[in-house]
Amino acid sequence: MKATIIGLGLIGGSMAIDLRKSGLATELVGIDLNPTYAAKALELGLVDKIEKEDKAISHADLIILAIPVNALGQLIPSILDSIKRNAVVIDTGSTKSSICRAVSHHPHRAQFVAAHPIAGTENSGPTAALSGLFRDKTNIICEQEKSSEHTLSIAQKVFEALGMNTIFMEPEEHDKHVAYVSHLSHVSSFLLGQTVLDIEKDEKNIFALAGSGFSSTVRLAKSSPDMWAPIFEQNAEYLSQALLEYIMHLQKFQYHLMKRDVKELHRAMTDANQIRRVLNGIEAKPQASTPLSLTNKSTNQQITELSN
Amino acid sequence: MKATIIGLGLIGGSMAIDLRKSGLATELVGIDLNPTYAAKALELGLVDKIEKEDKAISHADLIILAIPVNALGQLIPSILDSIKRNAVVIDTGSTKSSICRAVSHHPHRAQFVAAHPIAGTENSGPTAALSGLFRDKTNIICEQEKSSEHTLSIAQKVFEALGMNTIFMEPEEHDKHVAYVSHLSHVSSFLLGQTVLDIEKDEKNIFALAGSGFSSTVRLAKSSPDMWAPIFEQNAEYLSQALLEYIMHLQKFQYHLMKRDVKELHRAMTDANQIRRVLNGIEAKPQASTPLSLTNKSTNQQITELSN
Repeated sequence: MKATIIGLGLIGGSMAIDLRKSGLATELVGIDLNPTYAAKALELGLVDKIEKEDKAISHADLIILAIPVNALGQLIPSILDSIKRNAVVIDTGSTKSSICRAVSHHPHRAQFVAAHPIAGTENSGPTAALSGLFRDKTNIICEQEKSSEHTLSIAQKVFEALGMNTIFMEPEEHDKHVAYVSHLSHVSSFLLGQTVLDIEKDEKNIFALAGSGFSSTVRLAKSSPDMWAPIFEQNAEYLSQALLEYIMHLQKFQYHLMKRDVKELHRAMTDANQIRRVLNGIEAKPQASTPLSLTNKSTNQQITELSN
Repeated sequence: MKATIIGLGLIGGSMAIDLRKSGLATELVGIDLNPTYAAKALELGLVDKIEKEDKAISHADLIILAIPVNALGQLIPSILDSIKRNAVVIDTGSTKSSICRAVSHHPHRAQFVAAHPIAGTENSGPTAALSGLFRDKTNIICEQEKSSEHTLSIAQKVFEALGMNTIFMEPEEHDKHVAYVSHLSHVSSFLLGQTVLDIEKDEKNIFALAGSGFSSTVRLAKSSPDMWAPIFEQNAEYLSQALLEYIMHLQKFQYHLMKRDVKELHRAMTDANQIRRVLNGIEAKPQASTPLSLTNKSTNQQITELSN
């Protein structure tokens, strides 16, 4: 299968590696607006060649987009205008309502899959690409009923080749959930980093006291602003809601702190300890034999069922 | 050397393992208010025996306290009342002003070392104890001028046996810095956990979308409330200040988010990216050949200088 990857950073690059390894992609063409990224991806052997957009798109059987979400809304409709019959377009953006709206009336909507393979690291660019990044992680597909059976079966092969478990969700449901379990984490980490850097201006050597707990909490503050600013913009409503709830909890905690109300502080932390249950689930994911035992009405159908 | 460890959790237990391994402690006696912890520590061989407080204290050459910080203020003065001549008492609490005040006029103050070995995991109890926990980490000693030369030389042997780099700070300076680089991280993590658990009540299966970024940011929310509530209480002033600054950054970000001011969001994240510099420093710590090149006026003297 001839595959074209648009966006040769961490996500696009890591996909290229494993699509080649699995044998699914027999030819890999790359496109990146950043010529340094394009050259690096070629040098690292992530793709076989770099081509102009027109050619790379009209010849491809599979087109994967791994670019900032603000670029998808214009680009995907124009790609759908000019692709081969039976070619499949998959996006990987972290917000789904906006892109689903942008393509909803396109005559070739059935050739598109709105996907969000949930994986990543705090690093970016083609040099950050790595094999196995997606293995045993969750992939979300939205509005699967708008993709054709053929299109979904190709997408199924792609995400299986990456080792992912796919579940289905409505775009709004997806965006709300990721606001809490992904986007909020990033904001909290970015601003924790900023707070501590601020105080460092006055207090030298403050980081001599930073341990592994600090590193873990602030790791995501290394993430790419180019990638995250458009995600936050597109998910502003849900993220803002999550952020306000987070701020409310912090303010309550600060109030109890000023009152020296140790009982309330203790209670808040004991509540938060329940997160163990969740984290154990996340850490156990790779071993999960039934990732599909989800009972949510919109997640009760698995991509493997599509081949039946 | 006969060592008594008071508090057989993660910190006390891990110290016991490495003090025995290094040969520094030839006999290890344990004390824990929690009989299950005491029995477990004995069963795991962390200590040789469990003794009553009176006996375990009056016979010891070295007493290490690894218990919640609210218990230190009363216990350490009473221990100093009844220890052997030349015996050394070391605490490991995450706040230092309170304990330094509590012992400041004690006739045996010179036998005490106010220390904070900065290491830990989100787990607690004797089963969480592990060898190497302290290796290449930073230890802080406060008010070293109030400890005798003999006392400090024993403390030096202890922290060297654990593989730690010791620096010196004033108690207030210590408490302010850890408020930012440790305590604030814990609060942000606890309350991020609480925020997401809250929304989970209404939105099922939200955690299917949680990835490694979420795990990393919320890991500290698993920490022990029994340990952290007293730390937060004792460091309420500085932590509250740090928390207010953090909340202010979050509110500004939320404001720009609602305004869809992508430029400002981008700028805030780009500022936060500077944390890379710090994190690279933390990760490089184990290889640091000169942890003492700190120029802070209160950190310009190293424990190794004491033996001169």
